[in-house]
Amino acid sequence: MTSSGFRPLDDKSLVEYIKATPALFSKLANQLHGLQIKEVGDGNLNFVYVVISSAGSFVIKQALPYIRSIGESWPMTKDRAYFEATALREQRRWCSNHVPEVYHFDREMAVIGMRYLEPPHIILRKGLIAGIEYPLLAEHMSEFMARTLFFTSLLYHDTTEHKRAVAEFCGNVELCRHTGQVVFSDPYKVSQYNWWTSPYLDRDAEAVREDNILKLEVAELKSMFCERSQALVHGDLHTGSVMVTPDSTQVIDPEFGFYGPMGFDIGAFLGNLILAYFAQDGHDDQVNDRKTYKKWILKTIEQTWNFFHKKFTALWNEHRNGSGEAYLPEIYNNPELQLLTQKKYMQDLLHDTLGFGAAKMIRRIVGVAHVEDFESIVDASKRANCERQALVFAKMLLKERRKFQAITEVVSAIQQEQS
Amino acid sequence: MTSSGFRPLDDKSLVEYIKATPALFSKLANQLHGLQIKEVGDGNLNFVYVVISSAGSFVIKQALPYIRSIGESWPMTKDRAYFEATALREQRRWCSNHVPEVYHFDREMAVIGMRYLEPPHIILRKGLIAGIEYPLLAEHMSEFMARTLFFTSLLYHDTTEHKRAVAEFCGNVELCRHTGQVVFSDPYKVSQYNWWTSPYLDRDAEAVREDNILKLEVAELKSMFCERSQALVHGDLHTGSVMVTPDSTQVIDPEFGFYGPMGFDIGAFLGNLILAYFAQDGHDDQVNDRKTYKKWILKTIEQTWNFFHKKFTALWNEHRNGSGEAYLPEIYNNPELQLLTQKKYMQDLLHDTLGFGAAKMIRRIVGVAHVEDFESIVDASKRANCERQALVFAKMLLKERRKFQAITEVVSAIQQEQS
Repeated sequence: MTSSGFRPLDDKSLVEYIKATPALFSKLANQLHGLQIKEVGDGNLNFVYVVISSAGSFVIKQALPYIRSIGESWPMTKDRAYFEATALREQRRWCSNHVPEVYHFDREMAVIGMRYLEPPHIILRKGLIAGIEYPLLAEHMSEFMARTLFFTSLLYHDTTEHKRAVAEFCGNVELCRHTGQVVFSDPYKVSQYNWWTSPYLDRDAEAVREDNILKLEVAELKSMFCERSQALVHGDLHTGSVMVTPDSTQVIDPEFGFYGPMGFDIGAFLGNLILAYFAQDGHDDQVNDRKTYKKWILKTIEQTWNFFHKKFTALWNEHRNGSGEAYLPEIYNNPELQLLTQKKYMQDLLHDTLGFGAAKMIRRIVGVAHVEDFESIVDASKRANCERQALVFAKMLLKERRKFQAITEVVSAIQQEQS
Repeated sequence: MTSSGFRPLDDKSLVEYIKATPALFSKLANQLHGLQIKEVGDGNLNFVYVVISSAGSFVIKQALPYIRSIGESWPMTKDRAYFEATALREQRRWCSNHVPEVYHFDREMAVIGMRYLEPPHIILRKGLIAGIEYPLLAEHMSEFMARTLFFTSLLYHDTTEHKRAVAEFCGNVELCRHTGQVVFSDPYKVSQYNWWTSPYLDRDAEAVREDNILKLEVAELKSMFCERSQALVHGDLHTGSVMVTPDSTQVIDPEFGFYGPMGFDIGAFLGNLILAYFAQDGHDDQVNDRKTYKKWILKTIEQTWNFFHKKFTALWNEHRNGSGEAYLPEIYNNPELQLLTQKKYMQDLLHDTLGFGAAKMIRRIVGVAHVEDFESIVDASKRANCERQALVFAKMLLKERRKFQAITEVVSAIQQEQS
């Protein structure tokens, strides 16, 4: 990974870059008429330029060799762009409806050119804060997760293909290590970057650091995160990595992708929906008490898992005579056994999902990176109340996850936390 | 992996090879006086030459691009020699007392030159059949397993080193796939290569193929085998991969090595000791009823796990402030929590061990490759009785492994099976 040819782009050099890159320039019909370039990266990590002309549009994402929001003092490999481009292409291969097309990738420059998700696409998290219902969200996200996870697991892969892909994504170690630190470690110790709604949650944050059972459970999840190459996971599938309209759901930003436990993705998505739920009371006003919207979030949580379950097992049934090596047809193709194996598999996956989802919730309340769902609640005391409910629920979920048999029980528990 | 420079060695070309290879020739004091070469490979896979002169000795092991015992009709990458040499060096790095030194490795020729384990070293399995006690066996094998598994796990590794090593050993996919097939698949279906003591065990073999619960459990183990990169495992740690004298224990043949679940190694060793136990009744005679010897085997099983437990947790305690990323000191260095985490870790590891051990036992009775412990029992009916006891025990162990809290309970169950 030489960086000899690397230089950070700005508005001006970007134009030169586009002109010199047929795969991009052709998207603008090879002319610069009415060209507009806007830097829109609001994430923590990268620079993102929206490029629009009268003839066409695309997005340019460039990774720099450090974390954007922190600066050169927190170096991070720009090769994350390679893994993002590779993951995007692999995910789009299996789920073209919900993954934007990559037009161009330049490893040396760490530049990805991809489809511009035009308005009214917005970041799902912002939609959730605004109280907008997305009737197809559960349908689409369950589709994305079922397909990308199934087709990169040993239910579909043969061992040779699987190990090759696992080995390749082992190269994304720096981002995995970062995730490992901020999700499974920092919240459970005194850490320079941790913060929370102080002083309201001081005691709550301390309680997390002193909770032996919680730390015991989180260690098990961390081991699974580091050791288990179950499928190509997105690696950062929160509601900020999804862009939506009422009709369209597009999953972006898989630079944290690697072969890991499926529950890490599903848990990230569901955990962030649960955070959105607990944040709603901070966004109510006289016009909208958000009660209906909270019901919609709960329904979406329930549907996302149930649709996922249905789609995932349907893919399994459809491909049970394929090249997947986990369950050979000669052994497992008897109806009773197939039912048994799927039940066990999905039950284990639900427990992994709840564990990872809970860990993701906790880290967003007492760790380094918080969520706008809570941050946008201006009144600190009100915010702290919402966060505390979410934290209490997440701690219970992490410890008691194996007791839940179905997602409806989880939804009931969420409601109970708030009643 | 070009094979352009590859040629199979014979007695004659081997001499030329030695003369041209300083690392080997120097072991013979650079002269061929009194040179003796003997092909001794009795395993299934490779050619093994013992080279002895009046000045020194070594062993030459060459992998051919197929399975030796079957021939060119079952191709298998000769690059297994690379993984064997790499694993040997890594294991010796952590446990020099119990791993022979590698003098020379030639990847193109798939040739390893290593220490000749001189008489009275014999293969442990042959010693067990002969009824020889090895008072230091549990001590030594627990040392080998504790050190090689601990130092290649995330208890000692940092994530960067771990993922690099995992990725490298992903290249040994062909041998992993072979293991996956013969251990977790073939015994549970009709397979060309399966055989058993027929007709005595016909019904027993059929029962294995029809046992849904057994197949459900073995699928979970197969997933763990394929997906969980917990440590560098030997990958084939049966009693035929260990050479012993009363004072020395040397572990050889790690060509199946990869980053996998620790229990796969520990289970292989213990499972093969249990097979040896159940085979003893086939080897009794009027001089020796083997009762004392059977007690020694049980004691060795018990001690191997208990010593392993002690050594492994001692290493963990010793290195708890090191670079291992699984349990960061700032989070886990409180005495109560450390006790809790270790208890959970070792309990889970015991259950994995029993599961893998049981699967290894089953495959040696109704799968392709059997063990000399049983095969050397000439009377088929007597042999079948021994095998059936082992099989019944293994099936119970695979299904009920999570109920065992300590190795003493396993030993009691073995005795109960035979009473």
